[in-house]
Amino acid sequence: METDFASIITIGDELLIGQVIDTNSAWMAQELNKIGVSVKHRIAVSDSWDDIWYALDEESRHASVIFITGGLGPTSDDITKPLLCKYFGGKLVQDEATLAHVTNIFTNKLKRLMLESNIKQAEVPDVCTVLFNEVGTAPGMMFEKDGKLFISLPGVPHEMKWIMTNVVLPLLPTKIHTTNIAHRTLLTAGIGESFLAELIREEEAALPSFIKLAYLPNSGMVRLRLSASGEDKEEITIILNAHFEKLKDKVKGYLVIDEDLPMEAVVGKLLTESGKTVSTAESCTGGYIAHLLTSISGASAYFRGSVVSYDNSIKTNVLNVPKSILETVGAISEETARIMAESVRAIMQTDYSIAVSGIMGPDGGTSEKPVGMVWIAVAKEGKTIAKCFYFHHNRERNIQLTALNALNLLRITHCG
Amino acid sequence: METDFASIITIGDELLIGQVIDTNSAWMAQELNKIGVSVKHRIAVSDSWDDIWYALDEESRHASVIFITGGLGPTSDDITKPLLCKYFGGKLVQDEATLAHVTNIFTNKLKRLMLESNIKQAEVPDVCTVLFNEVGTAPGMMFEKDGKLFISLPGVPHEMKWIMTNVVLPLLPTKIHTTNIAHRTLLTAGIGESFLAELIREEEAALPSFIKLAYLPNSGMVRLRLSASGEDKEEITIILNAHFEKLKDKVKGYLVIDEDLPMEAVVGKLLTESGKTVSTAESCTGGYIAHLLTSISGASAYFRGSVVSYDNSIKTNVLNVPKSILETVGAISEETARIMAESVRAIMQTDYSIAVSGIMGPDGGTSEKPVGMVWIAVAKEGKTIAKCFYFHHNRERNIQLTALNALNLLRITHCG
Repeated sequence: METDFASIITIGDELLIGQVIDTNSAWMAQELNKIGVSVKHRIAVSDSWDDIWYALDEESRHASVIFITGGLGPTSDDITKPLLCKYFGGKLVQDEATLAHVTNIFTNKLKRLMLESNIKQAEVPDVCTVLFNEVGTAPGMMFEKDGKLFISLPGVPHEMKWIMTNVVLPLLPTKIHTTNIAHRTLLTAGIGESFLAELIREEEAALPSFIKLAYLPNSGMVRLRLSASGEDKEEITIILNAHFEKLKDKVKGYLVIDEDLPMEAVVGKLLTESGKTVSTAESCTGGYIAHLLTSISGASAYFRGSVVSYDNSIKTNVLNVPKSILETVGAISEETARIMAESVRAIMQTDYSIAVSGIMGPDGGTSEKPVGMVWIAVAKEGKTIAKCFYFHHNRERNIQLTALNALNLLRITHCG
Repeated sequence: METDFASIITIGDELLIGQVIDTNSAWMAQELNKIGVSVKHRIAVSDSWDDIWYALDEESRHASVIFITGGLGPTSDDITKPLLCKYFGGKLVQDEATLAHVTNIFTNKLKRLMLESNIKQAEVPDVCTVLFNEVGTAPGMMFEKDGKLFISLPGVPHEMKWIMTNVVLPLLPTKIHTTNIAHRTLLTAGIGESFLAELIREEEAALPSFIKLAYLPNSGMVRLRLSASGEDKEEITIILNAHFEKLKDKVKGYLVIDEDLPMEAVVGKLLTESGKTVSTAESCTGGYIAHLLTSISGASAYFRGSVVSYDNSIKTNVLNVPKSILETVGAISEETARIMAESVRAIMQTDYSIAVSGIMGPDGGTSEKPVGMVWIAVAKEGKTIAKCFYFHHNRERNIQLTALNALNLLRITHCG
């Protein structure tokens, strides 16, 4: 029996003019992968009748399940519903369950009268299966045609996620044939992509055809991902694990972690395991390191707090950096970073602390201290390590790289 | 003369299994729009020979310029270059300029010996125009076939951006016919999408066919975007502006700003104009509000700093919230939020301050104080405003919504 592939069509001009970044597709692909459905294509089209129609024709040639997100709102640029109605040869009818739900939202939650356009949201093509949307007014819809499944979902992320999680994902395995897919990922630091490839050349050559290796370089670190697919879940998992262990052993000098976790989760895991705490003193990152640490649920076990000393007066008044230091070696210096780290560690009474001070750009650089220069310090009982970095990107990426390298320096200090 | 459309093909399994979110396409679409090139399609395909080949065939049917990003690295999963070489009927040859550049990077920057795979990065199909990549080892490539332009770029964001900005965007208008596209966007708060549509029904009906209106709801706010396209740039801009002014006047009761700016930039603009300063005291947002404010270049003019008091001990020791308050009404209370705001304003000596305290989930909620409950306070000279919000989403989105509403409360306080 052949495997069923999925395709995702996202609808909306805002995706094509770059006003909005599509995060829905990545989430959907992840969830579909977990239940053994591979996404073969992702395509973004404009709010245009012809383009959407053509995409439906085209994607149903490649895939067995076609997801369509967006264009289900109550306004005039939302044309997905009438289009699907025509495409599948139905007519719009009131769905009583949906109307009751929409009415309930307006009466009890929004406490406003419904407009005609809101009542219209309860209309659905009579040839679809309604997919209940508990968290919004636009229901999802499922159509079947020539053995293919078409699933239309709202583009609002939390509505799409609710319908996928509660309705679509439980339903799919009863409708289509799914293959088992297993992934294992490890994260390395301190080695470039081509040198890593050289290091694991033998292990890569020894992979069976149903296991693929991918290199995912990002911000000076490289993730390696092995993906296996096959009918027998237990069998592919055993073989995948054996190859993964060999790979892991080969890269052990550069291994950060053998899971697909972001650096802030790696640090969180290490601190949780050791029962240690951390605080941050941030100048140029403006709270981004603290944000990354607290984006992980359970961070309260190890993260106490932060002082963002964007203005020099805060460095002096709150973090006790002497004015004389700021006036001589300046805010972007080893001395300032060290004192910031040691002060915040004392104020917050933590085992570790991180401090950063630098210039993220685009303005503020000098020939001596160029944009992208940053001092990072990590303090622990009796010892403070400081390192200078130079990044060469835009403001956003310089901030990200500073945060990532600061967390990595904490990781190395913690492990070393 | 017919307009030339662009299509973007992104290559990589990581995009289809959802491991990586595609931010390249949005940036490319924005930049292409600015020079009058409309992106008609965006498609993501796996690292598979057949899929990439098919996508090239298919996209060149719709578009005049086909961008291909990704798959140009030095490792075995990078197959774009040999594929393009075969697709356009060329053979791989050493490009001397690229080799000199790659050698220079290894000799002077990385200070490492080159591997064979690195030298190979200087090989290009003899049927392409090499697009110089100053910031990386993989050059871009341009092919022409049957009147269509194919542009292959590395998937690493800052390398793609460098080549686009310095090579491709200046070159395109000499190669293809571009139409003028003009957008104007305004941001509203406090009115739902359907009510907004009702409010501007007449203005919408009066739009000429070359102006499109889009509703972009996000986090309880709605952006309205007018897009005009046509041959005469001056003419479409005048007509667009006239319709935009009418729209603006109609929604004035809900208008936040008449530009396409994120809330943190709106606040930054207001504070810069008034010469006022701000600081934040953050519990549940963990520094995210400070991060948003400092993500805007020039924030040092109005943002002084922040205290992230994730742990209650920091609320007491640094922000002077009395222990008795934490023990009676608790950390998530109007009293705590008010004191946090007033304390940080005094410590940082700013005109305004923002404080937030809440529960972002997934754990930590109680029946009295459920997940998503948050107190937001804004303090200024002689007055502190506090409001309680309830959000119903996941941790990430609850943090975003809290930050956005906190910035909006500051905006309202500042304007009111």
